[in-house]
Amino acid sequence: MNNAITVIEALATLAFALSGLLAAARKRLDAVGVVVVAGLAAFGGGTLRDILLDRRPFFWVTHADWLWGLLALCIVAMLFLRARHFGVTERAMQWPDALGLGLFTAGGTEIALANGMPPIVAVLMGMVTAVFGGVLRDIVCNEIPSAFSDHRPYAVCSFAGGWVLVGAQQAGLPGETALAAAALTATGLRVLALATGWQLPPWRAGAPPPG
Amino acid sequence: MNNAITVIEALATLAFALSGLLAAARKRLDAVGVVVVAGLAAFGGGTLRDILLDRRPFFWVTHADWLWGLLALCIVAMLFLRARHFGVTERAMQWPDALGLGLFTAGGTEIALANGMPPIVAVLMGMVTAVFGGVLRDIVCNEIPSAFSDHRPYAVCSFAGGWVLVGAQQAGLPGETALAAAALTATGLRVLALATGWQLPPWRAGAPPPG
Amino acid sequence: MNNAITVIEALATLAFALSGLLAAARKRLDAVGVVVVAGLAAFGGGTLRDILLDRRPFFWVTHADWLWGLLALCIVAMLFLRARHFGVTERAMQWPDALGLGLFTAGGTEIALANGMPPIVAVLMGMVTAVFGGVLRDIVCNEIPSAFSDHRPYAVCSFAGGWVLVGAQQAGLPGETALAAAALTATGLRVLALATGWQLPPWRAGAPPPG
Repeated sequence: MNNAITVIEALATLAFALSGLLAAARKRLDAVGVVVVAGLAAFGGGTLRDILLDRRPFFWVTHADWLWGLLALCIVAMLFLRARHFGVTERAMQWPDALGLGLFTAGGTEIALANGMPPIVAVLMGMVTAVFGGVLRDIVCNEIPSAFSDHRPYAVCSFAGGWVLVGAQQAGLPGETALAAAALTATGLRVLALATGWQLPPWRAGAPPPG
Repeated sequence: MNNAITVIEALATLAFALSGLLAAARKRLDAVGVVVVAGLAAFGGGTLRDILLDRRPFFWVTHADWLWGLLALCIVAMLFLRARHFGVTERAMQWPDALGLGLFTAGGTEIALANGMPPIVAVLMGMVTAVFGGVLRDIVCNEIPSAFSDHRPYAVCSFAGGWVLVGAQQAGLPGETALAAAALTATGLRVLALATGWQLPPWRAGAPPPG
Repeated sequence: MNNAITVIEALATLAFALSGLLAAARKRLDAVGVVVVAGLAAFGGGTLRDILLDRRPFFWVTHADWLWGLLALCIVAMLFLRARHFGVTERAMQWPDALGLGLFTAGGTEIALANGMPPIVAVLMGMVTAVFGGVLRDIVCNEIPSAFSDHRPYAVCSFAGGWVLVGAQQAGLPGETALAAAALTATGLRVLALATGWQLPPWRAGAPPPG
C-alpha cells in the first residue's frame, strides 16, 4: 500500500515539474527561478498537505534523490528547450498532467483518511495535493492561479475523484481498487473536459465593478 | 471558555468568507476560485496561526460542517448575487467585518497566551488570526494586501485589542471579561476609524523612486 | 555552538529587515505594511525553514525582544528616512546583506543537518533560510521575487556555501570552523558577483511566447 502511494507520487511529480519549468521560462526567470518554480509545482502541493496534516518527513526528504532529478531536469531543459518547443510541450503535457491530477488526488485523499480526517477534509487534502503545486507556481510567477480563473474543470475533477475514494472505502472495496477508481475518475473527467471544452459556469453577477 | 472561543470563531467566519467571495467575483475567478478565496479569507488567518503555534486540529477539521456551509454560501451567492448588489453588500459587511476583527483578535490572542507565548507574540498571533485571512485572499487575487496599503486602521485596531487582553489577564480579570474587553476595543476602534475616516500616517519619505 | 547560531541569526536579521522596509516604502505601503514586510524579510526565511523542519519555538518567539526592535526600527525609519536616502541606503546595504546571506546559509544548513536531514535537503534549508525572507517580501509586494528573476547570483552563492558546510563536517572539521567556511564562501561569492557583475546564464529558449 505504501509502495503504491510512493509510485503514485513519483510518477505525477514529473508532469507537474514540467509545468513549473514552462511557466518560469515564459516569465523569463533566471536559472534559480526555473528550478524553484519547477520544484514548487512538483512538490508544493504534497508539501502543503503534509504541513496541514502535521506529517513528516516530506516526500522530498525521504526521496532526496528526486531533488537531484529535478535539478537535472531543469538544467537539461534550459540547455535544450527552444521557444518553438513550448507550445508542443504544453500540449503534450496535458495528458501526463491529467494523470498527475488523478494520482495526486487519490494519494492525497488516502493519506488524509489514514490520518483520521473527516471525509470532506480528506477530499480537500486530495485537492490541495493535486492543485496547490500549480497554485504556488502561479503565485510566485505573479499570476492569478489558473486553477482558480481559467474556467476549465481541474480542481472539480479532483473533488469528484476524492469522493469516489471516500465512497469506495466506505463500501468496503479493497484499498488498491478504491485508489484506482478515484484516480481514474479524476483523470477521466479531466480528459473528458479537455476533449469537450467543458467550461465551469461563470459568475452570474453581470459585471461587478473592479473597485 | 472553549465554547466561547468556538462561538467567537464561528460568527466571525461568515463576514470574512463574504469578503473573499466579493474579491473573487471582482477578479472574475471561476467557481473553484470563488470557493477557495472565500475559504482562505474565512479560515486562512486561524489556520496560519495554528501552523505557527504547531496546533492541531484546525477549526475547519473539528467543525467540518463549516466547509459545507462555505460551499453552500458560495453556490447561493453565485446564483443570486448580481452586480448591483456588490456595493451594498460591501458597505453592509463593514460592520460584521469589524465584529470579526474584534472576535478573531480576542480568540487568537487568547489561544496564543494559553499556548505559553510571550505577550508581544500573542498579540501578533491575534493579528495574524484577524488579518491574514484577508492577506491570503489578496495575494491569491494578485493584489497588494489592502490591510498593508489602504492606510485605514485595521491591523492596528487588532494590535490595540490584543494588548487589552494581555493587560486584562495580567490585572487578574475573569477570562470572559478580558476577552470581551479585547474584542470591544478592536471592534470599537475599527468602527470609530470607519466613522471618522482616520488614516494611518503616510510614509514621510517624500517620493521614493519605484526602482 | 548554540550561542554562535543565535548571534549569527541576530546579526543577519537587521540587514534583511532594512531590505523589507525599503521595498515596502517603494510600494507606498502604510505603516502596518512597512512593519509586516520588514518582519517577513527579516524573520520569514528562518520561520519557513522551521515550519518545514517542524521545529519550535521560532527565533522570534525565543527572542521576542527582537520584535520590539523591528517595530522601533520601522518607526525610526518612517520618521527620518527621506526619498534621497533610498539609493544610498540600498547601496550601503549590499554589504550587510551579503553578510546576512552567508550567516543565514550557514545557520540554516547547520540546523537542518542537526535535525537529521540528508545533505541536499540541508543545503536547501540553508537557501530557504537565506533567500525566502526576500521571496515572501516580494510576493506580498506583488512582485516576481528578485531572487528568481534578476539574474544576479544570490541563491547559488547560498547553495555553494551550504555544500561547503556539508563537506567540512564530513571532513571532520570543528563545528565553528565549518560554519565560518560556509558563511565566508556564500558571502565571498556574493561580494565577488556584485563586484564583477557576473550574471546567471539566461534561458536559452530564444523568445518563449508569454501565453
